[in-house]
Amino acid sequence: MHDASARHHAAERTGIWFVGARGSVATTATVGLAAIAGAQAPPTGCVTAREPFASAGLPEFADLVVGGHDISAVTMTKRAERLVETGMIPPRLLAATHDAVERADAEVRPGYDPHAGHGPGPDAAVSERAVSEQPVSQQPVSQQAVAERLAGDITAFQDRHGLARVVVIDLSSTEPPVTDVPELHDPEALLAALADPDRAVLPASSVSAYAAILAGASYAAFTPSAGMGVPALTALAQERGIPVAGQDGKTGQTWLRTVLAPAFAARGLKVLSWSGTNLLGGGDGATLADPDAVRSKLATKTRGLTALTGSETTPLHIDNVPDLGDIKVAWDHVHVEGFLGSRITLQTTWSAHDSMLAAPLVLDLARLLALAHAAGISGPVPELGFFFKDPWTSDVHDAAAQAVALEDWVRRTAQARP
Amino acid sequence: MHDASARHHAAERTGIWFVGARGSVATTATVGLAAIAGAQAPPTGCVTAREPFASAGLPEFADLVVGGHDISAVTMTKRAERLVETGMIPPRLLAATHDAVERADAEVRPGYDPHAGHGPGPDAAVSERAVSEQPVSQQPVSQQAVAERLAGDITAFQDRHGLARVVVIDLSSTEPPVTDVPELHDPEALLAALADPDRAVLPASSVSAYAAILAGASYAAFTPSAGMGVPALTALAQERGIPVAGQDGKTGQTWLRTVLAPAFAARGLKVLSWSGTNLLGGGDGATLADPDAVRSKLATKTRGLTALTGSETTPLHIDNVPDLGDIKVAWDHVHVEGFLGSRITLQTTWSAHDSMLAAPLVLDLARLLALAHAAGISGPVPELGFFFKDPWTSDVHDAAAQAVALEDWVRRTAQARP
Amino acid sequence: MHDASARHHAAERTGIWFVGARGSVATTATVGLAAIAGAQAPPTGCVTAREPFASAGLPEFADLVVGGHDISAVTMTKRAERLVETGMIPPRLLAATHDAVERADAEVRPGYDPHAGHGPGPDAAVSERAVSEQPVSQQPVSQQAVAERLAGDITAFQDRHGLARVVVIDLSSTEPPVTDVPELHDPEALLAALADPDRAVLPASSVSAYAAILAGASYAAFTPSAGMGVPALTALAQERGIPVAGQDGKTGQTWLRTVLAPAFAARGLKVLSWSGTNLLGGGDGATLADPDAVRSKLATKTRGLTALTGSETTPLHIDNVPDLGDIKVAWDHVHVEGFLGSRITLQTTWSAHDSMLAAPLVLDLARLLALAHAAGISGPVPELGFFFKDPWTSDVHDAAAQAVALEDWVRRTAQARP
Amino acid sequence: MHDASARHHAAERTGIWFVGARGSVATTATVGLAAIAGAQAPPTGCVTAREPFASAGLPEFADLVVGGHDISAVTMTKRAERLVETGMIPPRLLAATHDAVERADAEVRPGYDPHAGHGPGPDAAVSERAVSEQPVSQQPVSQQAVAERLAGDITAFQDRHGLARVVVIDLSSTEPPVTDVPELHDPEALLAALADPDRAVLPASSVSAYAAILAGASYAAFTPSAGMGVPALTALAQERGIPVAGQDGKTGQTWLRTVLAPAFAARGLKVLSWSGTNLLGGGDGATLADPDAVRSKLATKTRGLTALTGSETTPLHIDNVPDLGDIKVAWDHVHVEGFLGSRITLQTTWSAHDSMLAAPLVLDLARLLALAHAAGISGPVPELGFFFKDPWTSDVHDAAAQAVALEDWVRRTAQARP
Repeated sequence: MHDASARHHAAERTGIWFVGARGSVATTATVGLAAIAGAQAPPTGCVTAREPFASAGLPEFADLVVGGHDISAVTMTKRAERLVETGMIPPRLLAATHDAVERADAEVRPGYDPHAGHGPGPDAAVSERAVSEQPVSQQPVSQQAVAERLAGDITAFQDRHGLARVVVIDLSSTEPPVTDVPELHDPEALLAALADPDRAVLPASSVSAYAAILAGASYAAFTPSAGMGVPALTALAQERGIPVAGQDGKTGQTWLRTVLAPAFAARGLKVLSWSGTNLLGGGDGATLADPDAVRSKLATKTRGLTALTGSETTPLHIDNVPDLGDIKVAWDHVHVEGFLGSRITLQTTWSAHDSMLAAPLVLDLARLLALAHAAGISGPVPELGFFFKDPWTSDVHDAAAQAVALEDWVRRTAQARP
Repeated sequence: MHDASARHHAAERTGIWFVGARGSVATTATVGLAAIAGAQAPPTGCVTAREPFASAGLPEFADLVVGGHDISAVTMTKRAERLVETGMIPPRLLAATHDAVERADAEVRPGYDPHAGHGPGPDAAVSERAVSEQPVSQQPVSQQAVAERLAGDITAFQDRHGLARVVVIDLSSTEPPVTDVPELHDPEALLAALADPDRAVLPASSVSAYAAILAGASYAAFTPSAGMGVPALTALAQERGIPVAGQDGKTGQTWLRTVLAPAFAARGLKVLSWSGTNLLGGGDGATLADPDAVRSKLATKTRGLTALTGSETTPLHIDNVPDLGDIKVAWDHVHVEGFLGSRITLQTTWSAHDSMLAAPLVLDLARLLALAHAAGISGPVPELGFFFKDPWTSDVHDAAAQAVALEDWVRRTAQARP
Repeated sequence: MHDASARHHAAERTGIWFVGARGSVATTATVGLAAIAGAQAPPTGCVTAREPFASAGLPEFADLVVGGHDISAVTMTKRAERLVETGMIPPRLLAATHDAVERADAEVRPGYDPHAGHGPGPDAAVSERAVSEQPVSQQPVSQQAVAERLAGDITAFQDRHGLARVVVIDLSSTEPPVTDVPELHDPEALLAALADPDRAVLPASSVSAYAAILAGASYAAFTPSAGMGVPALTALAQERGIPVAGQDGKTGQTWLRTVLAPAFAARGLKVLSWSGTNLLGGGDGATLADPDAVRSKLATKTRGLTALTGSETTPLHIDNVPDLGDIKVAWDHVHVEGFLGSRITLQTTWSAHDSMLAAPLVLDLARLLALAHAAGISGPVPELGFFFKDPWTSDVHDAAAQAVALEDWVRRTAQARP
Repeated sequence: MHDASARHHAAERTGIWFVGARGSVATTATVGLAAIAGAQAPPTGCVTAREPFASAGLPEFADLVVGGHDISAVTMTKRAERLVETGMIPPRLLAATHDAVERADAEVRPGYDPHAGHGPGPDAAVSERAVSEQPVSQQPVSQQAVAERLAGDITAFQDRHGLARVVVIDLSSTEPPVTDVPELHDPEALLAALADPDRAVLPASSVSAYAAILAGASYAAFTPSAGMGVPALTALAQERGIPVAGQDGKTGQTWLRTVLAPAFAARGLKVLSWSGTNLLGGGDGATLADPDAVRSKLATKTRGLTALTGSETTPLHIDNVPDLGDIKVAWDHVHVEGFLGSRITLQTTWSAHDSMLAAPLVLDLARLLALAHAAGISGPVPELGFFFKDPWTSDVHDAAAQAVALEDWVRRTAQARP
């Protein structure tokens, strides 16, 4: 019975709408999705490929359709080629997925670039070089109008492909922290401000989140940017039946820390200091070389650790080391007090292609939010905290506890689903 | 109500009887117990110092009394002084605990040394140099007689101090693997063989385990030696109402591996190989430089890892590096397959005083087995698997799952206790 | 004057004759040589690309011609393709060097396989599958005859290409240590034994070395196998005007150790122990998983370190970790005594494609031995000790001192050259 | 002949005058000097304990007498006790050297604290709590007067002990970079400015350096502070026959880098990036948590590396991690381009008590500068560059080359000495 039902649900096609569709993570996810769907690669790194997820009626990989927004004119195909050159994506997979990636890129529409005026209107033509060529709109456009244009792209995508539902996933570059204003806390005030062509009350990531609400799409914030985390937007999502999850994907060093820190606590050992350094190149390295952007990142990275260990001595650095390309190397030094004040040290060195860690989790989130939406869940889903550095509506950071909670949730939700 | 009852139970004094009482771990545990009981040191590294253990009615640290067997003539006091010289035990704690350590050493009786004939009879006088001075018994003595002598030491200790119960903890040097014979699987056949003065069917560690049974004492095997793990003894323990736990304390590198390996699995990442090296000096380093002894150790160290990862490529070495003294340094290199076959590596370097890791867990086991005994539990307690590399009657190696199971067990058992 | 002369000498074409021409190192060197000669890659990793070597009149990269012996039927082209698949050689270089690699492989002749009888006679036809297809010679053939056949291949290669000289470089798989017999110490007795068809007094590597002597070719032993290190052969080389260099290429971990150990000594710091582990896959990993072969390797790896530090505590392991492919990972833990007995530790983790470290040094050796030959030097060249774990006729292991000695030698030799 | 002369010279007693005499390094050096002189510890970590230094006629350890300036009221004895408590100095050495340390502390005079007015006049009484108790001088005092007072302390020390010569070694806390003014480049203008009671043209470290000149004492700058590095002072030292050496002791991570970087260059390997992190506690950690002070330090640390590798990507951090106490942990990640663009990585983790690295080098400098002074050398001694991160009048950073140059210098100077 259960299997039949699972198979039935899986037949529903689901859209993934990437904000930042032409970046490394979205492109890697798209290549990988095509490779998994085409059986050219196993779903290694996908949490949802194993039980209890595998029989929970999530949409099959082959039933996921990709589209998205981006402000870049470099196509996913081009981006994938570059990722092959750097040694990240295997050449044979590029060939095997070429058509699927081209099809996905054909679904990419111009994103919202606040630095280029209030962005193109809803009727902007789509072309590979759309963003750079189109004349910057001379008339100020309200953020409401921008969001409606973006939402229109999403619903058109859904209609075009006959999708049961769409999940929006924010993978765009990290923004600096947002200045707090009263409108961010009050849905009505926010809607009023959005309608004013002279104001730009929301950061770009939050305009995209609002567009997801307008389009009735589920939403996940994989970056530390504000996105749906603005209280007034969270409230709107809750009200309009949108399940949301965030924030800031927990992929490498932070994940490792939330695996280790609870283990020390379970042993009654006392963490005195947890010092760390990240080296990374690629676009992310360059973005995070900006002291403003890195502030958002360092804040989410440290929050969970402090909660888990009680130690305030957690110096952390992110260095832009361009020659490392897509590889991220993280060193941690943990100084622990043991029995009778004895000295314990643990050092870890983690090395991985950052986009390769993020991409499968992004596919997991799309499948799980599709389930949440089908089950009628709205607002932040705390049990998806497993995926995030700074989980919304949850103070659980312990990775093992999060894994148990996630499995319980998927079992429960699959059974409760109408 | 609960608090009052907990306090009442705690007032019952409990004995800890160390097999290998004059070794590093037992001496460190004795110094530490005195320091904690005397409020000269916090119980850092003790699992049972926090909730839910703290309010489960375990015996208080101050209500634990130490004694034990050893074949060494070097007193605990002398051993503690050496551990101060190597920089492991802080000088101020040596002074603060001097009297308590002397008192504990006064409770040490000669252990069973199979290489010195069948050991001293039950009436052997106790003196610091007892073992080396007394004439080796010319008459062959049965292992039954040896075990009765050892059990007599334990019950005399219990009577002398008016103890509610005694927990025997095996901390003696690692023995080579045991040759299997039918008697090890059949309690009746075993008892017959033990009575034969011409046979020595059990290794020393198992004679001590049998003595615990005869004395009605709970028992924990902190070493990889056979001990109570001989099936016929496990059956006897079960039959005679003795709770037992084992085997081989999970203190450092193996613990870390059972923290990390399940986390990779939860992420859908595939461990390709897990390579490791241990460097250690001290007595343990010298013991494990013996290829026979190290075989027992390497087997228990690797078993859990293979179960957790599925990878068979797990080369592991233990090197005797005398200049490191009591410090153990372990390096692990984990090669993991990520999304689309991408390469992930994790290296860990762990450095700690090995005895400082083991000692608090030994105190935990004494407290928890006291609870098990009070609650009428007999035979292996699978929920104590948290403490062991190779848990008896459990195939759970995941450290986080073991921690949850342990907490559940202590809550349940504390409530069920008469 | 000097420049003109250097340019003149460089115009002389020089042959490199690889023993083990179809292995990873020789193939990588051949690809790299073609890429450097064709300006598709810089000579990074070649010692001789910089001053004082660059102006010492060494043969130009473009004037080096490759040939060799091998017992494998897998061509260099095929091997290069596999090295691209594992991610070691960049795809673009494979394309750019395809023709040069094919040409080099056309110069490969069947090597001497002692396990396949005494090997094919001197007239054996060359084909890609030559070795496996040809009938094993039923008549026993003397090692003298084998060596003459091999030498004939080398002189034919020299004639065919009009080469001023040829340098033989042994890159074949590590052999087990050789059983010592009197003939190995006495040139005349050795020559007599070689002529006996019923004896096989030399290991394969030494038959190749003898063939180099017969062909008047210079010779370098890049492996720990006996090769030219047999005393009677060294004497013959000296006598017949052949410059030779060995033994066992110092490429990664051992090189690093001989950089660091002298630095500790210069600071008056005392190395207490130097513990290490090597993880490697690839063919080398499989070869060294054989306990006999690994004995040769571990001996040469440890000799220099003990000489430099005086410490006898130098545990070292080599593990075959097939999933690592061509990458070698080496961890070292150095425990050092500092001022007033204080504790200093240094850990190093080295990760590199082993063949990529060896290949440029192999090209360097060819260029430098060509100079030695042109300058009339015969017998072991101690100043080439820079390149070797166990330098012949030199007890200098200090990498910095070796670099200075090498530079001095090249300056001196370039000037002294007729 | 040589031996007899060496023994004769050694009989001359030499003073070491520490600026910062009550800090960790000076105290450790004083304890160590007493322990070595008394044969309670070997001179491990002293460069000058081995040949060719041992027979170069340097003053014997037993002929070195300690005194110094400090602004702290915590005595060397007290400081030494604290260093025992943190586990750095072994307890038995504290007892063995107690009297010598007390004698040294009795030779400590109040230093110059620019933040406490222009400091006490030359007749200030010496007491353990001198600095805090004495009334701050209300009358402005010129830096000339301060320097004369400080010089008076040095010459009185020399007279009191009948010392052949005194070496001043600056071990005081790192100062922020100095603002450049014309007086710093012109000896005459500087002397005029120093005489003006209303100006404080020199930082404290340079006032001490000037005092050394006035006292005719040799001088070494073990910190990155300006000290004698001010051009006008260097010129004065040269003119007045004072040998000087600096700057910023090369003790741990930087030393390791200057060992490794030249080795990569000698192999023709290209360093792409060299990223590092330092964790340290203790007083030095706290000082360097000040962004101004750390600027001086980071500059000298990176200069040599950039010179040696040509790479500009050298992110480096220093974090104050108080729980580490006197231990400094440094992690480096070196990304190197190998043959055909292949990827090589080297990671190093260095852990040591920082003061234990510095102290023996400080004793070396005292011995070597005594030789330089006896040999009539004046001004910066480039061959002492071995000891410094940023060597004065030398652009050699290669540690091995520096060691060779130092040995050559000591041989030459010992022979040339009158």
